[in-house]
Amino acid sequence: MANYSVLDNARKQYNPKLPECLSKDISAVGFEEVNSGAQNPESDKLKEILPKTFGGKYVKFVQKTAKSGTKPFSVGIVLSGGQAPGGHNVIAGIFDSLKKINKDSKLIGFLGGPQGILDDKIMEITKEIIDNYRNTGGFDLIGSGRTKIETDEQFEKSLQVCKSRKLDALVVIGGDDSNTNAALLAEFFAAKNENIAVIGVPKTIDGDLKTDLIEASFGFDTAAKTFSELIGNVERDSKSAKKYWHFIKLMGRSASHIALECALQTQPNCTIISEEVKAKNQSLESIINDITKIVMDRGNNKENFGVALIPEGLIEFIPEIGALIKEINKLLGDNEQHFSTLKEFEQQSEWLIKNLSQTASKVFSSLPKLIREQLLMDRDPHGNVQVSRIETEKLIVAMVDTKLKELKESGQYKGKFDSLTHFFGYEGRCAFPSNFDADYCYSLGYCATVLIALGLTGYMTSITGLSKPVSQWVPGGVPISLLMNLEERKGKMKPVIKKALVELDGVPFKTFAKNRDEWAKNTSFIYPGAIQYFGPDEVCNQPTITLTLEKGK
Amino acid sequence: MANYSVLDNARKQYNPKLPECLSKDISAVGFEEVNSGAQNPESDKLKEILPKTFGGKYVKFVQKTAKSGTKPFSVGIVLSGGQAPGGHNVIAGIFDSLKKINKDSKLIGFLGGPQGILDDKIMEITKEIIDNYRNTGGFDLIGSGRTKIETDEQFEKSLQVCKSRKLDALVVIGGDDSNTNAALLAEFFAAKNENIAVIGVPKTIDGDLKTDLIEASFGFDTAAKTFSELIGNVERDSKSAKKYWHFIKLMGRSASHIALECALQTQPNCTIISEEVKAKNQSLESIINDITKIVMDRGNNKENFGVALIPEGLIEFIPEIGALIKEINKLLGDNEQHFSTLKEFEQQSEWLIKNLSQTASKVFSSLPKLIREQLLMDRDPHGNVQVSRIETEKLIVAMVDTKLKELKESGQYKGKFDSLTHFFGYEGRCAFPSNFDADYCYSLGYCATVLIALGLTGYMTSITGLSKPVSQWVPGGVPISLLMNLEERKGKMKPVIKKALVELDGVPFKTFAKNRDEWAKNTSFIYPGAIQYFGPDEVCNQPTITLTLEKGK
Repeated sequence: MANYSVLDNARKQYNPKLPECLSKDISAVGFEEVNSGAQNPESDKLKEILPKTFGGKYVKFVQKTAKSGTKPFSVGIVLSGGQAPGGHNVIAGIFDSLKKINKDSKLIGFLGGPQGILDDKIMEITKEIIDNYRNTGGFDLIGSGRTKIETDEQFEKSLQVCKSRKLDALVVIGGDDSNTNAALLAEFFAAKNENIAVIGVPKTIDGDLKTDLIEASFGFDTAAKTFSELIGNVERDSKSAKKYWHFIKLMGRSASHIALECALQTQPNCTIISEEVKAKNQSLESIINDITKIVMDRGNNKENFGVALIPEGLIEFIPEIGALIKEINKLLGDNEQHFSTLKEFEQQSEWLIKNLSQTASKVFSSLPKLIREQLLMDRDPHGNVQVSRIETEKLIVAMVDTKLKELKESGQYKGKFDSLTHFFGYEGRCAFPSNFDADYCYSLGYCATVLIALGLTGYMTSITGLSKPVSQWVPGGVPISLLMNLEERKGKMKPVIKKALVELDGVPFKTFAKNRDEWAKNTSFIYPGAIQYFGPDEVCNQPTITLTLEKGK
Repeated sequence: MANYSVLDNARKQYNPKLPECLSKDISAVGFEEVNSGAQNPESDKLKEILPKTFGGKYVKFVQKTAKSGTKPFSVGIVLSGGQAPGGHNVIAGIFDSLKKINKDSKLIGFLGGPQGILDDKIMEITKEIIDNYRNTGGFDLIGSGRTKIETDEQFEKSLQVCKSRKLDALVVIGGDDSNTNAALLAEFFAAKNENIAVIGVPKTIDGDLKTDLIEASFGFDTAAKTFSELIGNVERDSKSAKKYWHFIKLMGRSASHIALECALQTQPNCTIISEEVKAKNQSLESIINDITKIVMDRGNNKENFGVALIPEGLIEFIPEIGALIKEINKLLGDNEQHFSTLKEFEQQSEWLIKNLSQTASKVFSSLPKLIREQLLMDRDPHGNVQVSRIETEKLIVAMVDTKLKELKESGQYKGKFDSLTHFFGYEGRCAFPSNFDADYCYSLGYCATVLIALGLTGYMTSITGLSKPVSQWVPGGVPISLLMNLEERKGKMKPVIKKALVELDGVPFKTFAKNRDEWAKNTSFIYPGAIQYFGPDEVCNQPTITLTLEKGK
């Protein structure tokens, strides 16, 4: 049998496009410091926490005179957190650019995520190895993991490993948390006067690691397009059969960027945006009423079909449910031992209802049994409710169904409601990266190398102008500390990168909001189809609608 | 906002490839009768039932001398049953070929499936309309439905409608049942000496409408490839994160062709083939033991991840569950009124356990509660258990989990088992047809027109040589009655097209069986990626592995 699919083999031949400034002699790339304008209001406090690394400026890469005889670099990379399409291309980009600078440069990958640093488990990346992973999805080359490097002991251990490996730099590919920890590690190394750079690369399909200088996290493009392919297919099925409402939950831990992008791509009848729910302080009942209204109006118009999108994170944004989950987490955390003696759901449920606050207890009791079970039975190793395992889509269907039955009895609803539920997530995190993500990630890899070569640390790779053709992209780097603010964590003020939620006054949301009533009423489905890697430019080289609306063409 | 996606617009410009014989002057296409070899053992009885139409031979199209002044034809088309990618291209193929024969030819579509014939609901297909649907997925141009035209009253009504519409022919696009009914309708028309042809076109993503002369039903290629894209993505996620077993149920009513093709495309760790379960008379426990063994061996080898494929139809192929479902259907059918008074699951369950046979009752009680609920609560309008709604994947996960816990306690299993379930079905039925399906369906449309022009009725369009380049495909037609045998339906012997199940001595299954132990043990995932419509020939123009293995290159 074959070892690779035909597309896999074809994709390995793809040469990612590079911004102009990176496509020439890479040892001639220098930088200009640019005042990014925005003053961090918490700079004084951040300066205290990060004395060695705070205060850098955004740097934009520019062509300067080539340096001859640049020394070889030894670099370690680590993948942190959930998979996102394009990770292998970041590695390929670093590898190629390191070798361009000096063929004796060396790249090692830490295996299985940050734990691989602590355990000093590595593999050396060679040309033979990386050639087999170019433009492919997944993180399977070196693996990933969710260990956080955040304590002084872990920092010290990381330092020892990096030193023993004679590394000039460590590149951390991860989301907001991982990049936060990368900045702290950079500071730790600098405070010890160790000349080991730490560079972050923005990764997450959720799209919530975003600022003016980080226009998109990698993987968002491919994941959103893969989900949109599937949503479009389901929409077309729904419109052909005209007998089902499909409720589709979309992966994305907190922010609704994925749901919003998919809505713009596919124009379904209904899309919930968590940030709007929060802003309006909408109760679960009010959300159900909104959805029910759409189903009812369509049904009364003899359109007994439709598609609704639900962001995975919604459940925590609904005030009373978010409060309930917090209470459950605290209660079970405080009473771990006792709770673990209760084996049956009925016992657990009874105990919980007795010990929750009156409000939370009422909310808990009002939920369908399936959801109550999921809140209790399926908790993570820290005892917390696993929000991603709660079948919000089924919760909503059950409640809409109940509401519609009432409306039917009172004669207001004349349609039929038959529904199917879906959850799209794992289908999109390891897809072959779109040309956009393949190009973007490869370029980010180059940026990481340049930042290292320029002697910077605590920086995140940055490319702006992403909605323009690749040759016009502007590569550079931004101090991670510039993206930070202070938040209370376990009673202490900690510097963290703030999650970028959907902005309700941003163009993407406003575009959606302007059109949604029309989409609800008059079926306006759009079918994006499968991601194309070949073909006309407009078919295979377009960025997301979100990016285009945010940054212009 | 845009009305169409960029791919949608690009696909409408695609010119499907045609077999050589159909790509020239279509009015010059004649036929040769070919003795197909196989003698139908039930010919005598079929001849009694179908006196007017039985006895035709397989016809192969050949270029003859062009006829001048061919008269215009009026043709009606209807889509029957579940969606399959390529339906719109069959219509486009018929439209274009009809117009080539005579520009005054007319094509009407019956709306919403066979019910549209009975209700005489139609739309005329014009160039403007069809141009907007070329090479697109879905059946939304004219809709589809599941009404069966099978009674004499329905036949008579259909005849009246076809006559009043002055149709020369009716083309039925459907699966085995719809084509069976098409053959009976052809006989009915012929018996009334009405010169209205009835032509069938083989459609179903399940792939179970298949003989030597019908090498594939349309839609199977695209659906299997779409599911394989998703399975590959999930496999890569599983191999990257190394912490989940993914159990994926795949749509397909009875046969496991889809599961088998997807297994050959993606090489997962475990795939259940219903036909093998049936042949081995495997109990549910035995299946669970097989799967558990694979999970355990991998876990003991520190590979706590994997992917398993489960065909949707499995549940009915497991002897004791199949028997249970039949008993439930009969019992509830006979006691509909009483049962409808039992509102709560507990009451229903209790009543059922009392009234089922002892064996069935024991099986029912042994199932997880979720599955018992699904068996009782979610029945179709005829009161039957909705097999497609039973979450077999969750049933299997629950039972494997229980088994592994026992093995852990006894010290035989040292791994961790964490699982996620998926169901892929609606994601693939309305995808943009692959180039294969786009070409195949368009060519099938041409075949339908040629059969009509040649004055044949009760024929199904046939194209052989499908694993070869399109130019070498051999178009023709096969009498539907040649594919029939007699089966008992409601106490009467009825002519039906036998469902083509997976052949355990066929090359596709044998290839799978030879490799599966290796795939189980040593992760051998293959990632097919999204269907490509552009690009190198091997990337965008290959048939399924099943077809290639069955028919050679």
